Amino acid sequence: MKIYFTFEPREDLRKPLIEEFPQAEFIFEQGITEEVLREAQILVTYGEDLDEGKIAIAEKLEWIFVASAGIEKMPAQAIADRGIYVSNVRGIHRKPMAESVLAHILSLKRGLPSIYAQQARGEWNKRIRLTELNGSTALILGPGAIGQEIGRILQAFEVHTIGVNSTGEMASYMNETFAMQDLLEHLSKADIVISMLPSTEKTQGLLTREHFEVMKDSAIFMNFGRGDLVEEAILTEVLEQKLIAHAVLDVYMEEPLPTHSPLWKMDNVTISPHLSSHSSRYVERSLDIFKPSLQKWMEGERELENEIDILKGY
Amino acid sequence: MKIYFTFEPREDLRKPLIEEFPQAEFIFEQGITEEVLREAQILVTYGEDLDEGKIAIAEKLEWIFVASAGIEKMPAQAIADRGIYVSNVRGIHRKPMAESVLAHILSLKRGLPSIYAQQARGEWNKRIRLTELNGSTALILGPGAIGQEIGRILQAFEVHTIGVNSTGEMASYMNETFAMQDLLEHLSKADIVISMLPSTEKTQGLLTREHFEVMKDSAIFMNFGRGDLVEEAILTEVLEQKLIAHAVLDVYMEEPLPTHSPLWKMDNVTISPHLSSHSSRYVERSLDIFKPSLQKWMEGERELENEIDILKGY
Repeated sequence: MKIYFTFEPREDLRKPLIEEFPQAEFIFEQGITEEVLREAQILVTYGEDLDEGKIAIAEKLEWIFVASAGIEKMPAQAIADRGIYVSNVRGIHRKPMAESVLAHILSLKRGLPSIYAQQARGEWNKRIRLTELNGSTALILGPGAIGQEIGRILQAFEVHTIGVNSTGEMASYMNETFAMQDLLEHLSKADIVISMLPSTEKTQGLLTREHFEVMKDSAIFMNFGRGDLVEEAILTEVLEQKLIAHAVLDVYMEEPLPTHSPLWKMDNVTISPHLSSHSSRYVERSLDIFKPSLQKWMEGERELENEIDILKGY
Repeated sequence: MKIYFTFEPREDLRKPLIEEFPQAEFIFEQGITEEVLREAQILVTYGEDLDEGKIAIAEKLEWIFVASAGIEKMPAQAIADRGIYVSNVRGIHRKPMAESVLAHILSLKRGLPSIYAQQARGEWNKRIRLTELNGSTALILGPGAIGQEIGRILQAFEVHTIGVNSTGEMASYMNETFAMQDLLEHLSKADIVISMLPSTEKTQGLLTREHFEVMKDSAIFMNFGRGDLVEEAILTEVLEQKLIAHAVLDVYMEEPLPTHSPLWKMDNVTISPHLSSHSSRYVERSLDIFKPSLQKWMEGERELENEIDILKGY
C-alpha cells in the first residue's frame, strides 16, 4: 500500500510513522509528482495541491486525508464521481485556540502588557492594577468544539460560563446555555464576551452598538470567530467611547487589517494577526489523527474519524 | 462589640459587612486613634501599625485579624502576654498568584510578547512561532497551597505535574512527588520549572549551574518564590548561554532589581516587579475570610480559620 504525503513531516515525526506501519510504503514529497500519484492508494495533503487533472491521474487513489480544516480548494465533483473517501483534521485547532484565548484573558487580568512595557523602559513599578479571573462570568457566542474547550478551562479557573447558540440547546462546559434571540438579556452579566462564531448569513453584523451598550463597562470582548460579526466602525466607536474596557481581536473584516485602521493604535485593543490557531505542533497533531485512521483503513474499516462529504463541504 | 479597622474598605465592601453584623459597631479609620483603640475588642489591621505601647492601650482587645500574610512587624511578646487571639489571611495569595503564573506560561507559549510588539510597530505578521501548553511537563518546587493551585490548573490544561518538596510526601494536584535530594534527576523531564519556595537555610542558593545544565534547552524557568534561590550571576550566565529558553522572574536577590542588572535587557527574561500576588480584590478577599470568623467569634467559638501562634510566627 502506497501512502503519498505531499508535504514533508519532520524526521522525528516521520520515523515513528514508518515504524508503526511496516506494511505500508510511504513517500514524502513537497509537491506532487505524477509518477507517484499514479500509484498512490492514500494521499495525505493540505488540500491545496489537487485539481481534476490530478484526480484523473491518481487511478488507484481510494482515500484523501486532508491535514487541514479547509477543503474549499479541492475538486469536489471529480473526487465524488470517483467515490474517493475523504477525511480531515477537524478539531485540530481546539487546543491551541483555547490556549490563545486563555492567554489573552489572563494577560489582561494579570497586567502582562504593563509588565512587558515597563521592562522595555527599565522601570520597576509595582503600582499596576491587577485583577482576577476567578469568580468572573464569561459568555461564549458559539459554544462548539473550540468554545466548549474554552469553557472547560474557564470552569477550572472558577469562571461561570454562559453559552449562546442558535437554539439554546445545552452545550458541554457551559453552566447555562441560551438561544441567540435572548443574547441582549445575557450580555449584561458577562465580564468576558468571546465569539467563536463562523461567518454565515445569520452572524454577519450580528453585534450592533446596542449589544455593546448593555455590556459592563469593565467587559472584555474577544473576537476569535470571523471579522464580519460586527462592523469595524461600530467596534472602533464603542472602544473610543469606552463602553467596554478592552477588545482582543484575532479576525477582521479585511485581513491584513489595513494600516490606516484606528484599531492599531488604541490602548484598549489587542491586535492579533489571525494566528490564534497556529501551532508548531500542527503536523504532529495531524499525524495523531491520521495514524488511528490508517490502522482502521488497513483493517478494512471504511468509517473513519472526521469523514467528509466532499459535495456538502463538511 | 467594637470592631476597629485601621484601614478603609471601599463603600461597596463596607456596607454588606455592616448589614450582616448589625449587633457590632464598626469603626473604619486610616491609622490608629488611641481613644478608639482603648474601646475596641477586635482589631482588623495590615499588621504594620502596632507596637507594645498600642497593645498596652488596647485594654479590651481580644482578637487581632491581620489582613496580610506577614506578621513580622507585630509586637509578638506583648500580644502573647495578653493572650490576644491572632488570625490572618493565609492563602489569600493563592488564586492571584496561580493566575499570574499561568498568564506568563500561556503568554510565552502563544506568542503574546511578539503580538504586542508587532502591534506597537503597526506590523501584521503571522510568522510567529507558537507552541502549546497541553502535553507539557511542569516541575513545581515547593508544592504548597499556591503550588498546588498552580498544579490544579495545569492539570486542566493536560499538563503532567511533578512536585518536589523536602520529604517527597505526595502533594495534591501533582501527578508525582519527589524529594529534594532527587531534584537533578527529575529536572531533565520538565518543560516548565516553577519555584514557589520560601527563603530558608535550605533553599538559599539551592539551584546551581548544574541544575540548569540538566534542564531542557527549551525549558522555561519561573521564580515566584524568593530571589535567593539562585545566584543572579549564575542565572544571568545560563540565560546568556541559552542553556534554557526563558526565565520569568517575580523575585530577586535585591529588590527593586538594580538598574544595572543585565537581566533587564535580555530577550529571554521577563522581569515582573514582585507583584504576582497583587489584586484589586485583596480587601474583598480579606473580608471573605474575616466574615465567617467574626460570625464564629460572636457565637463564642475561639478556634478560627488561620489561627496564628504569634510567638512562633505562623
